[in-house]
Amino acid sequence: MGHRVGELARHLGGELLGPGGLEVSRIAPLAEAGADCITFIAQAKLLPQLAASAAGCIIVAPAQRELAEQRVAAGRGAVILCAEPYLAFARLTQWWAAATRARPTPGVHATAVVEPGVRLPPSAHVGALAYVGAGAQLGEGCVVGAQAHVGAGASLGAGTVLMPRAMFSEGCRIGARGLVHGGAVIGADGFGFAPHEGRWEKIEQLGGVLIGDDVEIGANSCIDRGALGDTVLEDGVKIDNLVQIAHNVRIGAHTAFAGCAAVAGSARIGRFCTIGGAARILGHLEIADHVHITATTLVSRSIHKPGQYSGAFPFDDNASWEKNAATLRQLHSLRDRLRAVEKALGKSLEKKTPS
Amino acid sequence: MGHRVGELARHLGGELLGPGGLEVSRIAPLAEAGADCITFIAQAKLLPQLAASAAGCIIVAPAQRELAEQRVAAGRGAVILCAEPYLAFARLTQWWAAATRARPTPGVHATAVVEPGVRLPPSAHVGALAYVGAGAQLGEGCVVGAQAHVGAGASLGAGTVLMPRAMFSEGCRIGARGLVHGGAVIGADGFGFAPHEGRWEKIEQLGGVLIGDDVEIGANSCIDRGALGDTVLEDGVKIDNLVQIAHNVRIGAHTAFAGCAAVAGSARIGRFCTIGGAARILGHLEIADHVHITATTLVSRSIHKPGQYSGAFPFDDNASWEKNAATLRQLHSLRDRLRAVEKALGKSLEKKTPS
Amino acid sequence: MGHRVGELARHLGGELLGPGGLEVSRIAPLAEAGADCITFIAQAKLLPQLAASAAGCIIVAPAQRELAEQRVAAGRGAVILCAEPYLAFARLTQWWAAATRARPTPGVHATAVVEPGVRLPPSAHVGALAYVGAGAQLGEGCVVGAQAHVGAGASLGAGTVLMPRAMFSEGCRIGARGLVHGGAVIGADGFGFAPHEGRWEKIEQLGGVLIGDDVEIGANSCIDRGALGDTVLEDGVKIDNLVQIAHNVRIGAHTAFAGCAAVAGSARIGRFCTIGGAARILGHLEIADHVHITATTLVSRSIHKPGQYSGAFPFDDNASWEKNAATLRQLHSLRDRLRAVEKALGKSLEKKTPS
Repeated sequence: MGHRVGELARHLGGELLGPGGLEVSRIAPLAEAGADCITFIAQAKLLPQLAASAAGCIIVAPAQRELAEQRVAAGRGAVILCAEPYLAFARLTQWWAAATRARPTPGVHATAVVEPGVRLPPSAHVGALAYVGAGAQLGEGCVVGAQAHVGAGASLGAGTVLMPRAMFSEGCRIGARGLVHGGAVIGADGFGFAPHEGRWEKIEQLGGVLIGDDVEIGANSCIDRGALGDTVLEDGVKIDNLVQIAHNVRIGAHTAFAGCAAVAGSARIGRFCTIGGAARILGHLEIADHVHITATTLVSRSIHKPGQYSGAFPFDDNASWEKNAATLRQLHSLRDRLRAVEKALGKSLEKKTPS
Repeated sequence: MGHRVGELARHLGGELLGPGGLEVSRIAPLAEAGADCITFIAQAKLLPQLAASAAGCIIVAPAQRELAEQRVAAGRGAVILCAEPYLAFARLTQWWAAATRARPTPGVHATAVVEPGVRLPPSAHVGALAYVGAGAQLGEGCVVGAQAHVGAGASLGAGTVLMPRAMFSEGCRIGARGLVHGGAVIGADGFGFAPHEGRWEKIEQLGGVLIGDDVEIGANSCIDRGALGDTVLEDGVKIDNLVQIAHNVRIGAHTAFAGCAAVAGSARIGRFCTIGGAARILGHLEIADHVHITATTLVSRSIHKPGQYSGAFPFDDNASWEKNAATLRQLHSLRDRLRAVEKALGKSLEKKTPS
Repeated sequence: MGHRVGELARHLGGELLGPGGLEVSRIAPLAEAGADCITFIAQAKLLPQLAASAAGCIIVAPAQRELAEQRVAAGRGAVILCAEPYLAFARLTQWWAAATRARPTPGVHATAVVEPGVRLPPSAHVGALAYVGAGAQLGEGCVVGAQAHVGAGASLGAGTVLMPRAMFSEGCRIGARGLVHGGAVIGADGFGFAPHEGRWEKIEQLGGVLIGDDVEIGANSCIDRGALGDTVLEDGVKIDNLVQIAHNVRIGAHTAFAGCAAVAGSARIGRFCTIGGAARILGHLEIADHVHITATTLVSRSIHKPGQYSGAFPFDDNASWEKNAATLRQLHSLRDRLRAVEKALGKSLEKKTPS
């Protein structure tokens, strides 16, 4: 099914150069885009492709108008000028998804289980074999996917989507336009125990999880409920797959976690941060706004200053690594030896100087 | 709903100072506790709060009787003296949970699937859309949450709870009072293959998983079945979220794993150990009792001595890290250069000494 | 139930020495194998056990014929000579599993939900409470386990098995003889967002996941769908538990990922690689064929040469680690100081030489 590039340009609020009636049938990466494709150029180094690409339509910044007009004049297809081509690409994918994907039909599947006292507007969808616990509150247009789980008393804001097999536990709350992927577990117990004679006495986790608007949570990620108060994710937080957010953590608005990252209990992460893949933040720390943590870094103390922070061991071929790693275990003594050399050399030079 | 502090003191086996009829309606952290709250002080540095806090009731150690009596005399609420305040807090949360949470009603939900030959005492609960395979054995008071899965021939001890969407596979066994959180997968295949002409030939995993009493397993954690024998978790083991326990591993009693930790195949971990978040233990290693592994440490050889072990790269601002990490790749040659300097300096000093 | 070793030898294509009528009732590790057990010896260092072991039957390489004949002559049971004993063990486990495990019966469980337009051969099995979306295609002998999920339009090749609670999302495709474990999520959205005024604009993930033949995917692992094209796993890829494969990644044939490993977006991994547990590969990198990555290594640039690569911090007792880690933060300045010493010493030696 084709889409006219004129319609796409209107939707994106861009300026169309070239034939608006030209149809494209898919979005493609620049390198693979053929005559039936729409693509985009967001990086200066790729601009030579504006002339060379076989794409039917290319989104590019208005600053490239001249090159764009040359392309169009040469009959090589259409161009859409958009202020931020990468953003325009994102919005194009949204338009595309809405145009091409089946929307879940409102209503409750016959095999779903909906317990008493649920607020369930007619616009909401509850899929096959899904479970909605007593007293849960679903907003307008909510989607509870097949086999998904909404615990008793949980609350989902308007337009929030639980993908199939997502789990949103008892009493947890999420705002509007949220998206929770399959296998994610929101609201399992935080990991809290009091030691007692070598054993662990469970601290029941009495708090919940409170999530703002426009939050996305990836597949098989876990957001634990708080011990006494709530674990909090503010508006616009984005969480990739297999991420662990422990109890009582607070994550500031618009902060993003890449896959396999983890935050231990009671840490407070600022706003507009990015936490790289498999990075770890220890418990009870505070991370300022606009902090960027490199993949696999262990953050072991609070960070009060915006900036980028790293802490990965540089990898190497195994033989080189083995030598350096072995030496690393003697690093402190190497430092002492260096000091001794400096001292001895200082004396040696002193002694020599008068002679 | 309020609870009288006199009743709480009796339950905790503590000594009440002040008005037993005073009611509290929630447990709160010390810093946030108001007049309707009960809280606790377990750290000496927080003792000044015993006088200052607005909490309705505070749990504190008997050694603080004098301060406690002053607080009560000043009409600032009640105090409960307990030998171990943090333990008392844990037990208070347990009492609270039992008093305030709905208990699953005994019986099998109409939408659950229970295969033939299952032992299912009347006290057990099988939730909506749950599955219990043929010949499974459930103990008294077991709870199989909504959409949870019990494989054929699996066995759950008395009082064990599978939270909604937990998976306890075919033939696996767990003792009494266990708790398995949503998304946990107990008894998937261990990762075993024989290499053959560049391909992998599957080694079917014929063993099971054997879990003792009082074990808790976090959300989306995985405990693989053994290749031939069983993977074993002894009594009192506590496993946080997203933890990986590979086939044939044995974990000693009362050892705890923080989130995202992992143990490779056939490792044997001792009792009373703590394994920090995202720490990794390689296969076939042995770890003694009372070993404590710091977060993100890779344990690459056996540990025979109790103690704390660490191995994380210290993080830094990115520019500093880059310089140090780059130098780290030359560390072995730096050592050689230091040796050369020491030798040259030795000669230089030797030469100079006789002159 | 016993199995005659003669039958096992025939199945394995090995040469039986000793009594073919001898029965064994389980496969056991060498150290634990008694008279009712069959076991194997694949390592030279274990050969002394060929005489000493109490096992009823031992699989060993033909090169050990002489030792084997001595064992048999001494009446200590049977031996099967196989060219590759470890491979023979793998095949024995396969035979054992086929002989002893219940096979899912063809057909659709009454509580499963199968949407319209599904291709569902009579040989396929769809388990209790499973979901199969509209237009999905199941091959001959496919198994969709209890509570598993097949999205609309997804395609499973002949003999592929989704274990209970596995999730295979809309439009994703897998070839023949695949095995997907419980909790795995195939086809969640890749993590793609365009930054816009401090917020994140979602890039809808319009691609799918394309998986070859003979691929195994572990419990709670995630394989994200591509942004525009497909995420690809070629034939024979083996993925352990809790592994994250991001969008647009391509993994070459017969490459294996140990538990908790992760690959960021658009990376291309070669064939015949092994990626150790919790190893990480950054986005957009290329890894050649026959590359082996050690556990927990962060691969931060492309690798064009086969070989083994490592990058883990060597662990130590905590006190030693602390000293070395602290010094590591000064490593670059240590290098500068060493240079200064070398220079000073050079001058010192120069000065001394003429004297």
